[in-house]
Amino acid sequence: VRLRLVLEYDGTQFEGWQIQPGGARTVQAELEAAFQRIAGQRVRVRASGRTDAGVHAEAQVASVELETRLEPEVLCRALNACLPRDVAVTAVERAAADFDARRSSRSKLYRYAVWNDPARSPLRDRRFLHVPKPLDLAAMRRAARDLEGTHDFTCFQAARAGARTQVRTLERVAVLGRAGGEIRFEVQGKGFLRHMVRTLVGTLLEVGRGRRAADSLPALLAGRDRRRAGATAPAHGLTLVRVDY
Amino acid sequence: VRLRLVLEYDGTQFEGWQIQPGGARTVQAELEAAFQRIAGQRVRVRASGRTDAGVHAEAQVASVELETRLEPEVLCRALNACLPRDVAVTAVERAAADFDARRSSRSKLYRYAVWNDPARSPLRDRRFLHVPKPLDLAAMRRAARDLEGTHDFTCFQAARAGARTQVRTLERVAVLGRAGGEIRFEVQGKGFLRHMVRTLVGTLLEVGRGRRAADSLPALLAGRDRRRAGATAPAHGLTLVRVDY
Repeated sequence: VRLRLVLEYDGTQFEGWQIQPGGARTVQAELEAAFQRIAGQRVRVRASGRTDAGVHAEAQVASVELETRLEPEVLCRALNACLPRDVAVTAVERAAADFDARRSSRSKLYRYAVWNDPARSPLRDRRFLHVPKPLDLAAMRRAARDLEGTHDFTCFQAARAGARTQVRTLERVAVLGRAGGEIRFEVQGKGFLRHMVRTLVGTLLEVGRGRRAADSLPALLAGRDRRRAGATAPAHGLTLVRVDY
Repeated sequence: VRLRLVLEYDGTQFEGWQIQPGGARTVQAELEAAFQRIAGQRVRVRASGRTDAGVHAEAQVASVELETRLEPEVLCRALNACLPRDVAVTAVERAAADFDARRSSRSKLYRYAVWNDPARSPLRDRRFLHVPKPLDLAAMRRAARDLEGTHDFTCFQAARAGARTQVRTLERVAVLGRAGGEIRFEVQGKGFLRHMVRTLVGTLLEVGRGRRAADSLPALLAGRDRRRAGATAPAHGLTLVRVDY
């Protein structure tokens, strides 16, 4: 039977989603081990997309093909009893035979969280990037608008990533919150290049600090040169919020 | 000079506020060590109240007497550079010579956070108590009302605590949120007995689960018997939110 899983995880202690040779601690490895223990089968769990080391998920979606007569709710409880504290299955349901968490997805929503205050915030330490100096929200919003729509995003792609095309469509790039306090970047689109959201955020933060002009993004995109974009923002600020099908 | 400090900490890795013999990792010990390094003085830092092991603070207030010519903002940055990641000073200001964080406080607000959902929530794991079975919010709200005001709270006091009087006044006991999701208990008052907030919450949770009648709190208070109250709710759900002066 084909199953659709919804997963929540705190990425702090994971080497990302994807299973790796050598037994790195990854979300996929923990999940497949849990299925092995419960159903005695080696299965392959596919996610909507791979999250990097340190990236969190509120509702990652995954698909798996499993031979079982267990009801989805029973399977869900059994998985959670096996999984470590930093990952949980929040829903399990039967899916169409051709459901594939990656290929069937229509859109993904990522959130990048920033704590913009002179003082560190220990209670936000695991999920917010701390930016002590003031950020110009209006400038970041102005710049974000130029990223919406269909563009060649080569300038935001990790150096050695090998996607066939760098053209992607962003449905929405929003900057929420107020200067001095919690700021959230929301980026929604069908597909992303490797490190794209974090590099896009790193670039907008340079706009917010006044180190880059608010109207400079179209030229940056047109230049298709990773070296001219900003630094890749750290992984711990990023959360996969939702996947739509 | 007398200083007023505001502190934020993630209590997960602390053995509470108070310095202990034997070098336990406590917030007070970390702070006093930071002052020692910066100002070369052994000082005693006093908090508005001692938080237990595992309890968090969004804005604990502390007072200290220090000989220094450093400006408060400079001192704040220096302290944060010395302190570990899970505690930070969010404000430092000069205070009146008789300011004492504990004795001068008028009221403290505690929040207890519950994740009420069949599935665990890894992203809430450090700050929410997970209650998988449904809670009756209306019943908990009904019961909470009977705790507001001035009462003898002996029934909620830790077994071997030695306060002179068990009479305290709670200005507010609120149950916020909705069944199925995040629920927050807010308890505000001038002073609390040891474990009082956590035992009060543990008792309200029994009301929420239908194991205790919503109108049974007046008799429980009158009985002044700790053994008849509920279990002490775990520390990690509790946060000291604010202290008013």
